[in-house]
Amino acid sequence: MDFRIEKDTMGEVKVPANAYFGAQTQRSIDNFRIAQDINKMPKEIIRAFAYLKKAAALTNQEAGVLPAEKATLIGKACDEILEGKLDAEFPLVVWQTGSGTQSNMNVNEVVAYRAHVLNGGQLTDKDKVVHPNDDVNKSQSSNDTFPTAMHIAAYKMLLEVTIPGIKKLRETLAKKSKEYMHVVKIGRTHFMDATPLTLGQEISGYVSQLDHGLRAIKNSLPHLSELALGGTAVGTGINTPEGYAENVAKKIAELTGLPFVTAENKFESLAAHDAIVEAHGALKTVAVSLMKIANDIRMLSSGPRSGIGELFIPDNEPGSSIMPGKVNPTQCEALTMIAAQVMGNDVAINIGGATGHFELNVFKPMMIYNFLHSARLLGEGCVSFNDKCAEGLAPIEANIKKHVDNSLMLVTALNTKIGYYKAAEIAQKAHKEGTTLKEMAVKLGYVTEAEFDAWVDPSKMVGKIS
Amino acid sequence: MDFRIEKDTMGEVKVPANAYFGAQTQRSIDNFRIAQDINKMPKEIIRAFAYLKKAAALTNQEAGVLPAEKATLIGKACDEILEGKLDAEFPLVVWQTGSGTQSNMNVNEVVAYRAHVLNGGQLTDKDKVVHPNDDVNKSQSSNDTFPTAMHIAAYKMLLEVTIPGIKKLRETLAKKSKEYMHVVKIGRTHFMDATPLTLGQEISGYVSQLDHGLRAIKNSLPHLSELALGGTAVGTGINTPEGYAENVAKKIAELTGLPFVTAENKFESLAAHDAIVEAHGALKTVAVSLMKIANDIRMLSSGPRSGIGELFIPDNEPGSSIMPGKVNPTQCEALTMIAAQVMGNDVAINIGGATGHFELNVFKPMMIYNFLHSARLLGEGCVSFNDKCAEGLAPIEANIKKHVDNSLMLVTALNTKIGYYKAAEIAQKAHKEGTTLKEMAVKLGYVTEAEFDAWVDPSKMVGKIS
Amino acid sequence: MDFRIEKDTMGEVKVPANAYFGAQTQRSIDNFRIAQDINKMPKEIIRAFAYLKKAAALTNQEAGVLPAEKATLIGKACDEILEGKLDAEFPLVVWQTGSGTQSNMNVNEVVAYRAHVLNGGQLTDKDKVVHPNDDVNKSQSSNDTFPTAMHIAAYKMLLEVTIPGIKKLRETLAKKSKEYMHVVKIGRTHFMDATPLTLGQEISGYVSQLDHGLRAIKNSLPHLSELALGGTAVGTGINTPEGYAENVAKKIAELTGLPFVTAENKFESLAAHDAIVEAHGALKTVAVSLMKIANDIRMLSSGPRSGIGELFIPDNEPGSSIMPGKVNPTQCEALTMIAAQVMGNDVAINIGGATGHFELNVFKPMMIYNFLHSARLLGEGCVSFNDKCAEGLAPIEANIKKHVDNSLMLVTALNTKIGYYKAAEIAQKAHKEGTTLKEMAVKLGYVTEAEFDAWVDPSKMVGKIS
Amino acid sequence: MDFRIEKDTMGEVKVPANAYFGAQTQRSIDNFRIAQDINKMPKEIIRAFAYLKKAAALTNQEAGVLPAEKATLIGKACDEILEGKLDAEFPLVVWQTGSGTQSNMNVNEVVAYRAHVLNGGQLTDKDKVVHPNDDVNKSQSSNDTFPTAMHIAAYKMLLEVTIPGIKKLRETLAKKSKEYMHVVKIGRTHFMDATPLTLGQEISGYVSQLDHGLRAIKNSLPHLSELALGGTAVGTGINTPEGYAENVAKKIAELTGLPFVTAENKFESLAAHDAIVEAHGALKTVAVSLMKIANDIRMLSSGPRSGIGELFIPDNEPGSSIMPGKVNPTQCEALTMIAAQVMGNDVAINIGGATGHFELNVFKPMMIYNFLHSARLLGEGCVSFNDKCAEGLAPIEANIKKHVDNSLMLVTALNTKIGYYKAAEIAQKAHKEGTTLKEMAVKLGYVTEAEFDAWVDPSKMVGKIS
Repeated sequence: MDFRIEKDTMGEVKVPANAYFGAQTQRSIDNFRIAQDINKMPKEIIRAFAYLKKAAALTNQEAGVLPAEKATLIGKACDEILEGKLDAEFPLVVWQTGSGTQSNMNVNEVVAYRAHVLNGGQLTDKDKVVHPNDDVNKSQSSNDTFPTAMHIAAYKMLLEVTIPGIKKLRETLAKKSKEYMHVVKIGRTHFMDATPLTLGQEISGYVSQLDHGLRAIKNSLPHLSELALGGTAVGTGINTPEGYAENVAKKIAELTGLPFVTAENKFESLAAHDAIVEAHGALKTVAVSLMKIANDIRMLSSGPRSGIGELFIPDNEPGSSIMPGKVNPTQCEALTMIAAQVMGNDVAINIGGATGHFELNVFKPMMIYNFLHSARLLGEGCVSFNDKCAEGLAPIEANIKKHVDNSLMLVTALNTKIGYYKAAEIAQKAHKEGTTLKEMAVKLGYVTEAEFDAWVDPSKMVGKIS
Repeated sequence: MDFRIEKDTMGEVKVPANAYFGAQTQRSIDNFRIAQDINKMPKEIIRAFAYLKKAAALTNQEAGVLPAEKATLIGKACDEILEGKLDAEFPLVVWQTGSGTQSNMNVNEVVAYRAHVLNGGQLTDKDKVVHPNDDVNKSQSSNDTFPTAMHIAAYKMLLEVTIPGIKKLRETLAKKSKEYMHVVKIGRTHFMDATPLTLGQEISGYVSQLDHGLRAIKNSLPHLSELALGGTAVGTGINTPEGYAENVAKKIAELTGLPFVTAENKFESLAAHDAIVEAHGALKTVAVSLMKIANDIRMLSSGPRSGIGELFIPDNEPGSSIMPGKVNPTQCEALTMIAAQVMGNDVAINIGGATGHFELNVFKPMMIYNFLHSARLLGEGCVSFNDKCAEGLAPIEANIKKHVDNSLMLVTALNTKIGYYKAAEIAQKAHKEGTTLKEMAVKLGYVTEAEFDAWVDPSKMVGKIS
Repeated sequence: MDFRIEKDTMGEVKVPANAYFGAQTQRSIDNFRIAQDINKMPKEIIRAFAYLKKAAALTNQEAGVLPAEKATLIGKACDEILEGKLDAEFPLVVWQTGSGTQSNMNVNEVVAYRAHVLNGGQLTDKDKVVHPNDDVNKSQSSNDTFPTAMHIAAYKMLLEVTIPGIKKLRETLAKKSKEYMHVVKIGRTHFMDATPLTLGQEISGYVSQLDHGLRAIKNSLPHLSELALGGTAVGTGINTPEGYAENVAKKIAELTGLPFVTAENKFESLAAHDAIVEAHGALKTVAVSLMKIANDIRMLSSGPRSGIGELFIPDNEPGSSIMPGKVNPTQCEALTMIAAQVMGNDVAINIGGATGHFELNVFKPMMIYNFLHSARLLGEGCVSFNDKCAEGLAPIEANIKKHVDNSLMLVTALNTKIGYYKAAEIAQKAHKEGTTLKEMAVKLGYVTEAEFDAWVDPSKMVGKIS
Repeated sequence: MDFRIEKDTMGEVKVPANAYFGAQTQRSIDNFRIAQDINKMPKEIIRAFAYLKKAAALTNQEAGVLPAEKATLIGKACDEILEGKLDAEFPLVVWQTGSGTQSNMNVNEVVAYRAHVLNGGQLTDKDKVVHPNDDVNKSQSSNDTFPTAMHIAAYKMLLEVTIPGIKKLRETLAKKSKEYMHVVKIGRTHFMDATPLTLGQEISGYVSQLDHGLRAIKNSLPHLSELALGGTAVGTGINTPEGYAENVAKKIAELTGLPFVTAENKFESLAAHDAIVEAHGALKTVAVSLMKIANDIRMLSSGPRSGIGELFIPDNEPGSSIMPGKVNPTQCEALTMIAAQVMGNDVAINIGGATGHFELNVFKPMMIYNFLHSARLLGEGCVSFNDKCAEGLAPIEANIKKHVDNSLMLVTALNTKIGYYKAAEIAQKAHKEGTTLKEMAVKLGYVTEAEFDAWVDPSKMVGKIS
């Protein structure tokens, strides 16, 4: 490979001849040879940086501390990053300095050098028209840019991937709930037969879980909408012009179309990432919900002959390399694996969040890596589950009917007529002798046949149905 | 011990002669010999049951399905539970059936038998004036009462212990922040010297964390305010009179003075405890904040001679059994242990929440045990930390001044004057040669003495102070 | 209450007149009002301290630094603690100083004062024959005694409760596995019907899990057998006589009958509790196994009429307060709640273990509290599950036979005869048309009836059975 | 893109014309559009499959159930996978079916088709010389191949990356410990000054932690060395020739050079992954150790002027984009982020491990993804930390000396001379009045100057040094 020589405050470094990045990026590549092929800094963070660098340049220009031509060049380079044209220029990994300083410098270098080239310069020119630190990073520090990028990336992912994905599944389930609101089926508690409900009611519980989950995510957005930018090195805003924090947040809000505001307290924004911890708390709540929902669906569709078999789910692929004709609830499995992952990610985020010290938390890249991972898995996982499984859900009516008809727990309807103790006696004896409830109830002389038929009607045991 | 014979639907059981509980409670004692001396069902759950049993009796009476005299007797027995008079009658442990059925039956039995005795009866009477299942449990199931008790207990604990405790600490820190808003000190990022800020600013970050944490807790209250009662066995409300769910929630709201409402979806309320998961997500966020705060305080007060030594904290006890005169940040240690516990409890709650099946989650006692544990530890931990540590916080001004004066990072103020690269050169050479910044800056010829004094003034590097 | 005045290096304190503890214990009661009714320092730690204080006294006597009469008195007081006679004298909670210093001082005070009284003195005597620090704590520090007590308590709990409990369940399952080794049943993968195995084989998997789990626990014992005692304040052994560390470990080994040794590196023993982290890693592995086993058993016994219904488990109590005659897998529920708790405790322990600093880890009480909790829950939980559930397990042969006979996955036996693709065609068409495999196989012309009967025999599909 | 038509038991699918994979792989791509750019099935799993497919072919050949020429072709295709030549043919993600069936089929297809092409055929030939299911997958199921691949990949990663990485760091620390064994420094407990120890002693604690951690990892290897292969669909070994399980394990051991054996119980091997849970328990123990070590090092090197400043660590890169000349402990930060990640991964693995059902655990891809992630991060993280930080560690002697000389805790040496109480008085008064210990000791009349000098000598307070 061809190289050129780059310099930073510590001296000279060889970088690939055509790379837009400079010495500090190269140092980080060399210093952190950890999972380099699988743990690149998420591209969402790089894009978020592009928004903020452009916004900072414009704000600096308006404040009179950056010439218009530099601001324009910086903006153009940032636009190219947003278009994905410079993806290869961001080779750094998550496992670097905990402030993300090196990724900030990576962005500074790429923006400065690309701006210089856009302006007609060469990568090998000693002096560049735009300087990584003095221009691209003006009025900024890694300590306030990286957390700002975290919030932009997290907020965007939640709005663009996570929430729409969950909502899509929620809508499908709501539709199914309505469609099957009158399909009476056996209830199950403790895995044991219980009083009946309808399939639509059962599914409505899932819808309610997701509704509450969506609300929990939305409750966490205001904290995420607070941006650290303007706090610079330690939160005091050293080296920023008057009004900068408010203005740059406004600019980011304009560029992203999202309601970002400057953080009410910059010291918190740099030293703690409770907004990430809090929002991921909402994500893990949704993960918990999805684990329950997917588990139910795979158990209700178990069989085809020796399981519960009350629910049909689509056959998407051959299920076994050895058992011919086998079909498995694979979407449920992907979704429950995702749920487990999110619950694990939550712990990593908690530990990172708890371990900031003094003016800076230095678990930033790890925290946002896990956050974006969870947010994306949940969103895309819900879409996959929706499209390939939930959409195709349907009751297997024959099995559902058989189970309701056989149920001993219909006896519960007699509690208010003959009391809990006599009702229990009927159920226990019917179970032991293998008879129907009705036979036993009449045999024991507690009710007449007519009374039984009038009182024990599964369709009347499911309450009011909206 | 003397015994009497009690009966349930499965047969006879010997119970202590004077116990107010009956056969089902005794079976549970015998069947679950697990941590019986240390893991009793939390008393907050028992009290919550007293509220709901009383509310149910009154609602049943109004609905015409329970005679007034029975309702009155049930109410009296419940009042005694609330007064703590019957604490010894609730011997069951957390590690029982996952629906909490046995604790529901324990309450049913104690209320019925105590009501009978209050009415002039004897524990040994074969027939009691109030029946545990048919009267005390009327229009109820364990499946809706236990989750209702969970929400009542959780909500009350948050309002009575957790939030006030956190607020108390928040107020003290806010006061300290204001008091020390002009004490300029060195900032630290990556544990390394950074640009200055004031002690008040530093503490304001903690205040902001707690403010956001309190908001997160409050955001979780609406979900917790939803009560499952009225769902009975599987969420359909079988065996409840018209309007029961709404009315009983209203009654509970009256009795507790808290804004409880009937759950919008009872199937969710029985089968999932996402409200607990979500609210504990807020608690773990606060735990994360407290870990950060307490760590900072113990590190800032480290020394007395070979640490950072910028913060005085009260000496509450001799710190060492072998090192005479040693004083340690013990309140910080208790609080950080609590934070770790809460983060662990969170995982237990997540796993329990994710593992409900069909119409019922059967990790209920474990989930609420952990929730109440966390909520109480945080509340009482904050009060202890507040009273014995935060209240006594004070700057050690001599050390603070020394650290600011020596700092190399004051050079940052020169960035906007001479550029980042030259500023870096000054700092690096001053560090290597052990000189002051000023000496080196002048020696290198980048600034004059007068310029240095004008530009590098710590008190001007801390931004605007409100 | 009556009080007397006690003194420590910080001044005077009022303590209850008859309490054997002194000023430092009372300070801790006053300073840490956190969960005082539910989170006392585990009694196993107090007992462990009694062993080590006695061992230290004897070792000090032999080293000539403690008079024989004092050593004897100390030993007597310790024996009383071991007999449980002084339980009320240890009122401190887990949430105290993170080194457990105050519990060490509590023990020092109680031993000294009880020794003085045993010697004929009065609690109110100004000078006591035995001094808490200078005699009871001689050659010790909280920093080495508390971790020593942690290891003694953990090791004893594992040997006396955890391992025997798991083994008991393991033996029962091994017996059941043998007993039902020839009961051919359908296999299930992905909750879907699969090729057959025997019930005994299925249960043998559980036995193998527990065998490996027991091995994992035993692998962790050597690290736990290492005692910190002799390291004193920071690991250097300051203020200990020659040979003390080795001798006192030997003495503790004699007194407890367990193979304790002095730690190979005392700096680790004080500053880190990786032995606790490691051993709890084994406990969480067992928790993971038990979750799987208990889940299987409750699902296999689900029904009685609309579930899988292949396994009978004992009816221990009425299962529902509203559904008469219902019986639930309550022991499975207790055990799975325990498993979730242990997985949560693991995280708390990890965080505590990771957060030691310099010469001391100060999450000691929290770590051992969680460890002992897990170890006890697993041991007692296994015994309860064993006695009330596993012992009574039995196949429900009618359902088992029906499921095997209907299975479509028996077609797998044809793979090696007619290839995977044709076998798949048979299974899929039989499923679609609701026929038996045999009918479809013959209809499609891939095999004759005789071939089918010869090749597709469930009892030959289960492999070699030992 | 050009396509060709492929077929499986469910019908036709379009696949890229030149892809070596077939219908089942393509279905999985289409069905699981989840994190496709960042969560590919780890390449270590693909390589492990290559070993096992080759081993299975050879074993089948020896058993007479596979023609030699097919076995040879399969072996050749597997060798190409091992050489990394076919990496692009494995596009599937972690979030697929929980048994990893689709990755097994992906391998079956690629091996079969590549074998066919190696044999001179075309991808478009309708019949291939080697069949994915009937030949490549012969005597196998996804259910036993995927867990076999998990163990091969995990074992290899531990041996090739994790253990060597940890050992490298361990050796460097051992060398440093020896080198600085006589550098007396102040000890710190509770972040507070304590009695002295040497820097070498302090570091020896880290070495001991890593030694125990390495032992813990090694203890987990035997369980990991057990291979599921031969269990096929449900553990019974259906469709395998006599002696297959033992022979194929032997073959894998030969090919990999690692001591693999056939699992003692195949039912466990398919239905549970306790070996992964157990081994990751060891990894999280090491993560806990590394968090402690890296935290200590960054705090000991804190400063340069207002921190502890006792340890020099190398300057690897400019530390701040705004604070010129700042250098940060970035390797410590990467390592502690890794530690947090591993602790999070542990929880995901626990949940997956606990949630297997009946004859199969279907969290396999998620579990091994997290395991390999942790194992690699720890190994590569230790190497990075070693090379860029630990190797360059050195004491800053001036600061170390200053801290020792000032320490009040040297008073501990007087305990055995004048008693704990008088020693405490000296320390407390010296602290209050800002004097040295000696001045105060003499002033209070408890010792003479000569006695003080003789008794209070830091170099004699550090115990025996080997």
